[in-house]
Amino acid sequence: MNKVFTGLGRRLRLGVIGGGPGSFIGEVHRSAARLDDNFEIVAGTLSSVPNRSIEAGCSIGLSHDRAYGTAEEMFAGEAARADGMEVVAIMTPNDSHFGYCRRALERRLDIVCDKPLTTNLADALELVRLVREAGVVFCNTFNYSAFPMVRQARAMVRNGEIGDVRMAHVEYVQGHNAALTAGEHGVSPSNWHFSKERTGPSLILADIGSHAHHLVRFVTGLDVTAVAAQVCATVPGRHSDDYGGILFRLSNGAPGTMWITQAAAGAVHGLRFRVVGSSTSLEWFEEEPNRLHVSHLDAPASVLERGGLGLSRAAERAQRTGIGHPEGYVEAFAVLYADVAEVIVARHLGQPVDPFALDFPNVEDGAKTMKFIEACLESAHSRQWIDCSLA
Amino acid sequence: MNKVFTGLGRRLRLGVIGGGPGSFIGEVHRSAARLDDNFEIVAGTLSSVPNRSIEAGCSIGLSHDRAYGTAEEMFAGEAARADGMEVVAIMTPNDSHFGYCRRALERRLDIVCDKPLTTNLADALELVRLVREAGVVFCNTFNYSAFPMVRQARAMVRNGEIGDVRMAHVEYVQGHNAALTAGEHGVSPSNWHFSKERTGPSLILADIGSHAHHLVRFVTGLDVTAVAAQVCATVPGRHSDDYGGILFRLSNGAPGTMWITQAAAGAVHGLRFRVVGSSTSLEWFEEEPNRLHVSHLDAPASVLERGGLGLSRAAERAQRTGIGHPEGYVEAFAVLYADVAEVIVARHLGQPVDPFALDFPNVEDGAKTMKFIEACLESAHSRQWIDCSLA
Amino acid sequence: MNKVFTGLGRRLRLGVIGGGPGSFIGEVHRSAARLDDNFEIVAGTLSSVPNRSIEAGCSIGLSHDRAYGTAEEMFAGEAARADGMEVVAIMTPNDSHFGYCRRALERRLDIVCDKPLTTNLADALELVRLVREAGVVFCNTFNYSAFPMVRQARAMVRNGEIGDVRMAHVEYVQGHNAALTAGEHGVSPSNWHFSKERTGPSLILADIGSHAHHLVRFVTGLDVTAVAAQVCATVPGRHSDDYGGILFRLSNGAPGTMWITQAAAGAVHGLRFRVVGSSTSLEWFEEEPNRLHVSHLDAPASVLERGGLGLSRAAERAQRTGIGHPEGYVEAFAVLYADVAEVIVARHLGQPVDPFALDFPNVEDGAKTMKFIEACLESAHSRQWIDCSLA
Amino acid sequence: MNKVFTGLGRRLRLGVIGGGPGSFIGEVHRSAARLDDNFEIVAGTLSSVPNRSIEAGCSIGLSHDRAYGTAEEMFAGEAARADGMEVVAIMTPNDSHFGYCRRALERRLDIVCDKPLTTNLADALELVRLVREAGVVFCNTFNYSAFPMVRQARAMVRNGEIGDVRMAHVEYVQGHNAALTAGEHGVSPSNWHFSKERTGPSLILADIGSHAHHLVRFVTGLDVTAVAAQVCATVPGRHSDDYGGILFRLSNGAPGTMWITQAAAGAVHGLRFRVVGSSTSLEWFEEEPNRLHVSHLDAPASVLERGGLGLSRAAERAQRTGIGHPEGYVEAFAVLYADVAEVIVARHLGQPVDPFALDFPNVEDGAKTMKFIEACLESAHSRQWIDCSLA
Repeated sequence: MNKVFTGLGRRLRLGVIGGGPGSFIGEVHRSAARLDDNFEIVAGTLSSVPNRSIEAGCSIGLSHDRAYGTAEEMFAGEAARADGMEVVAIMTPNDSHFGYCRRALERRLDIVCDKPLTTNLADALELVRLVREAGVVFCNTFNYSAFPMVRQARAMVRNGEIGDVRMAHVEYVQGHNAALTAGEHGVSPSNWHFSKERTGPSLILADIGSHAHHLVRFVTGLDVTAVAAQVCATVPGRHSDDYGGILFRLSNGAPGTMWITQAAAGAVHGLRFRVVGSSTSLEWFEEEPNRLHVSHLDAPASVLERGGLGLSRAAERAQRTGIGHPEGYVEAFAVLYADVAEVIVARHLGQPVDPFALDFPNVEDGAKTMKFIEACLESAHSRQWIDCSLA
Repeated sequence: MNKVFTGLGRRLRLGVIGGGPGSFIGEVHRSAARLDDNFEIVAGTLSSVPNRSIEAGCSIGLSHDRAYGTAEEMFAGEAARADGMEVVAIMTPNDSHFGYCRRALERRLDIVCDKPLTTNLADALELVRLVREAGVVFCNTFNYSAFPMVRQARAMVRNGEIGDVRMAHVEYVQGHNAALTAGEHGVSPSNWHFSKERTGPSLILADIGSHAHHLVRFVTGLDVTAVAAQVCATVPGRHSDDYGGILFRLSNGAPGTMWITQAAAGAVHGLRFRVVGSSTSLEWFEEEPNRLHVSHLDAPASVLERGGLGLSRAAERAQRTGIGHPEGYVEAFAVLYADVAEVIVARHLGQPVDPFALDFPNVEDGAKTMKFIEACLESAHSRQWIDCSLA
Repeated sequence: MNKVFTGLGRRLRLGVIGGGPGSFIGEVHRSAARLDDNFEIVAGTLSSVPNRSIEAGCSIGLSHDRAYGTAEEMFAGEAARADGMEVVAIMTPNDSHFGYCRRALERRLDIVCDKPLTTNLADALELVRLVREAGVVFCNTFNYSAFPMVRQARAMVRNGEIGDVRMAHVEYVQGHNAALTAGEHGVSPSNWHFSKERTGPSLILADIGSHAHHLVRFVTGLDVTAVAAQVCATVPGRHSDDYGGILFRLSNGAPGTMWITQAAAGAVHGLRFRVVGSSTSLEWFEEEPNRLHVSHLDAPASVLERGGLGLSRAAERAQRTGIGHPEGYVEAFAVLYADVAEVIVARHLGQPVDPFALDFPNVEDGAKTMKFIEACLESAHSRQWIDCSLA
Repeated sequence: MNKVFTGLGRRLRLGVIGGGPGSFIGEVHRSAARLDDNFEIVAGTLSSVPNRSIEAGCSIGLSHDRAYGTAEEMFAGEAARADGMEVVAIMTPNDSHFGYCRRALERRLDIVCDKPLTTNLADALELVRLVREAGVVFCNTFNYSAFPMVRQARAMVRNGEIGDVRMAHVEYVQGHNAALTAGEHGVSPSNWHFSKERTGPSLILADIGSHAHHLVRFVTGLDVTAVAAQVCATVPGRHSDDYGGILFRLSNGAPGTMWITQAAAGAVHGLRFRVVGSSTSLEWFEEEPNRLHVSHLDAPASVLERGGLGLSRAAERAQRTGIGHPEGYVEAFAVLYADVAEVIVARHLGQPVDPFALDFPNVEDGAKTMKFIEACLESAHSRQWIDCSLA
């Protein structure tokens, strides 16, 4: 990965919103930002409870005056400093993304924002408009697309190495919601995922359907244009969706299937895709992310290894270690941060950007996913095929 | 597996229709029938061309007078002998199954018949009626259900070891039709699969959708009650379906997804299912058929090995070799023949039948699959969910 | 596989010694002989106890007069018939192979004999001499070499597709002797494996070291010329060896390692080899026998599938079903019988033999393994490297 | 992982020696040190060429006055500062470890030093003595032992969950030296690995045999007491060893085998171990590091997943992300840094240390490996078993 220091002679100044005590994704963001040493975390609002926010900020090493109690104070305080934050990373519940992003865009900060972009399509489209106006860098963290071998898959499709895309299948099969939990009926207020106000109308679509949707678009380079979906709760007594079965059509007419759930007893992580081309098919499984399985119409199958032979530049630039030294979840997440840093530094230096650095998911990607979510829900309700093109 | 000799003191007399030169499935049937030494192949009509039929019959070791030119002659000739065939195995193109079965039922022969049962639901229902009337043994060769570890999966569901069935996924992803072939447009008359007259209205549903449908029913012990399907040809210029994406609902309300194709470039065989229960999930992959992956809500995952510890009697009775000595396709196919033999012999001897011997797919299974096929096609056409219960 | 009928117009007449009630390998031999319909089992001596032998013979369908009480009677009785057995298959404890083979060679019968060939090198060398004199077909059933993808590996080495053999590793890690059993101290007289008189001086080397040794020779086309070995019992209280760790050198100077055991708790079957060439490496695992993993110095790895693209004729002629229809243990065992049949029929017809049909392990292979066993034991005792060339 | 900030209120001050431009391991050390935010890299000597060293130091973000030209200057300069480095990380060619460590020990710095510890046993033993005298923390980076599932394996052995260790196998099969390269004959002076002066007497033993040796000791909790080895160059024209086949004996008498090479064409990384206990066996493969395969004498096999159920505290404390979010090479390396930080902080605070934090490899481990290396070479030369106990 590129290093900011080489170009800029300093690290980019990052502020964080969310990710306080008990948050998994907060530590992921911060580790990812640190991994390539392109960012210095200078400011933070880690909790929606002011005194907990300040305490948490200090505990991760922020200086006292930059461990803020509220995002409002952080935006104001940082704007008032010559060395204020340049980039803001938002890792809060879904329903707050829109507000924080809008605030950040008013100050023309570059943004890294968790997925899903918002809790409804209208807000998402408004953010698309605002980002375009502001002209800033916006990354919506569909992090699975940043695994080097997923980048490799995309590159192979883009380069015509698989021929025409003929069909696709993507599944994301998790198990952590296989049983009814206390948290999901309000007993544990901290688990916001089961609250439709915070998560949006469908837990399963917001949490992982969004990833599956982005992944199939990212690899095929095509949009999802129509869906027929079965979305429901499979665990008795549950009020949030935990299952989705989806038929889809891609923008070139190719059909596809999607299976997403968080209620598969004993499942590990289960994110997997298979993209079939006219000459070649690609298969990737997130639990073994350093491999891409490639099968051919007219030759024996091959296995591409991260760090090995036969990789595209898109994959090579996204990796840090040699063949057989596994790279994992944090490294892929960090690729997003590295790409964002590279684009920002190029802007600072007035230099052209490596087009591959722009492969990170952006605000339009986020909005397309919101359209997909709404279409799936409409289809599940009407039992009809629903168009999900975003004109 | 049980041996007929122990009980009956002789082998059962089998006649075969179809399976002549160039047929893959013919050799499979004959090897499967021979494997456990329960059958002697005494008569055959191996081709629809009389002189080729006689020649082919002799070449597999039939005596000259029992290598028949036509099925008509075989039915008559064998009926006239004291030592005539008792069981007939039908391995011909789909559109001929109905006629041969009806003929065999008139003579009250036990029947092993290739899948799909017929080319339309009406014929299938008529066969159900006739088989019930005749009171014979009828096996429709959904052979994948006979792998010991598939039997194990079914036993675990039946015994409540996975809790309630919550969802299912089955895929069957082959590659041999990934490119347009000369044969499919009538240039090569021998490839009857691409002829709708011979195969039925949908190649993909008849060839492998049928297997996937039976497998999910067999393992879950539930029926498929409704479908929403996308069925089409993905290879430009093709007139037969080569793809199906199907959402389904099981009779207990659980949802499921199915992906079937023969047009995935470079695919091997790709038959795989995953059945999720409230406490435990099961996963099986036909390319590694001697393993069943079992994951649990509240314990680490386990791997059951054919021949190993922790198997049900249903699995144990379906196997022949020890742990780690792989059993494959022919062995599973032979389990069907062994079960059929066991049931016939029990009838001969007036003894009770081991209920597990009745696990082979029967004529009702065949008819349910025909209903499924018709419902999928109707759904693909109307873009609606279609009921596929067989009242 | 080739069919005898096409050429000879009849099946070969096979007699069996051993394989009575409770025997695993007996059923394997008989199924393997039946699978391709090249043999008719016409005579048998299934037990060393005469009345059990006769009863067992009848129970497998032999006619009463050819279900013999002793091998002596069988050799005599069959010799007296015009339609007497032509081939004899020996599946008895190791110490009896020599005697039965000698008897069969006196009558110039073709022989299929279980491994290890004998219990000592001297007997083995005597058999080599006698087989050469008699000029018969002799197959020593190192059956793992008959898997199509092992044949493929051998073909690739022979054709120069991997360059020079640089090193090899073979392991055979089983678990069925991981705990001390009643049988091994004479309590259960039926388990002859733990008796040095019957098995030979080393259980582990006789049972599976022999297979590992043959496999590495078969695939590399090289001999094992020297060994340094650690052979011992790892289970306290055991008198028979259950472990071997062996360093070896091949006839081209390449080094190798071997790990064999039957005392690995929970192991499945664990037969695996890896042969490294100067340009390409091959890896095969018996638990997934339909795949050969091929890795390259200068290209991504590939996976060859039985029934798929890119196979040699040696592999193709050894298979019966299409890609993804798994073939297993019995099928591989049956390849040995099919090869033997093909060679015998060619001799009958005075036709040239397909050289690939001669790939079955013969009496010299059996003798080389006996030399290897003795060298390993000597090395384990002296803690020195021991030569095991067979001049 | 624990965080230093919580306890100490600041990061530990780290200086680095080595790891300049072109170094793979330099970036690994620095990423690992940064990952959990326990260290601040404050000083560095990144190259043995002073001006390159200063330039490289600045390029990784060191302040100008602490980007030193020589280690000598760094030791002196940092000692003169109140905020000087507390810990030094050494990532230079093998022959320089001894000198840098001695210098660091004179100043009682805590040390993280690359493996192998030295180039000969005498130096290693001297370091053991000096470290004991100085009473500092010393970590020798056998990083594979820090994967959570390797820690899990060790915990299971230690807790008696596998019974008595009965045998072990470890292999490390790489491919990057499968062909003769320009660098290895001095043409490319930068590749110091092929220089015996810099690497020590055996490239293969120093590079990866050392890892394999530590791993088997780490997991079994036993020492390697004797070896019989075949160590050689398999690539024609090569002067450095690229292959080792090793028989060994553990301190409880259990036997084992080891296969190590860097000359296997097309190999990925290939670090794998299998430890067999009297009741249970463990298998781990570094290319899929988040899984531990557990097989049992009397139950079906199970698969433990990092982040999943059934893990020991030793594994849980070494991980950062949830189940199915793969952790890789850098994360494991960072576990060593986190453990070191935790021990140092406990010393600062006068608090007891979590015993699991002491699981990182120390100077005695380093010395035992040097003894193993010398014993293997002596065995390869004398063709005898050689004792390698370190009294």
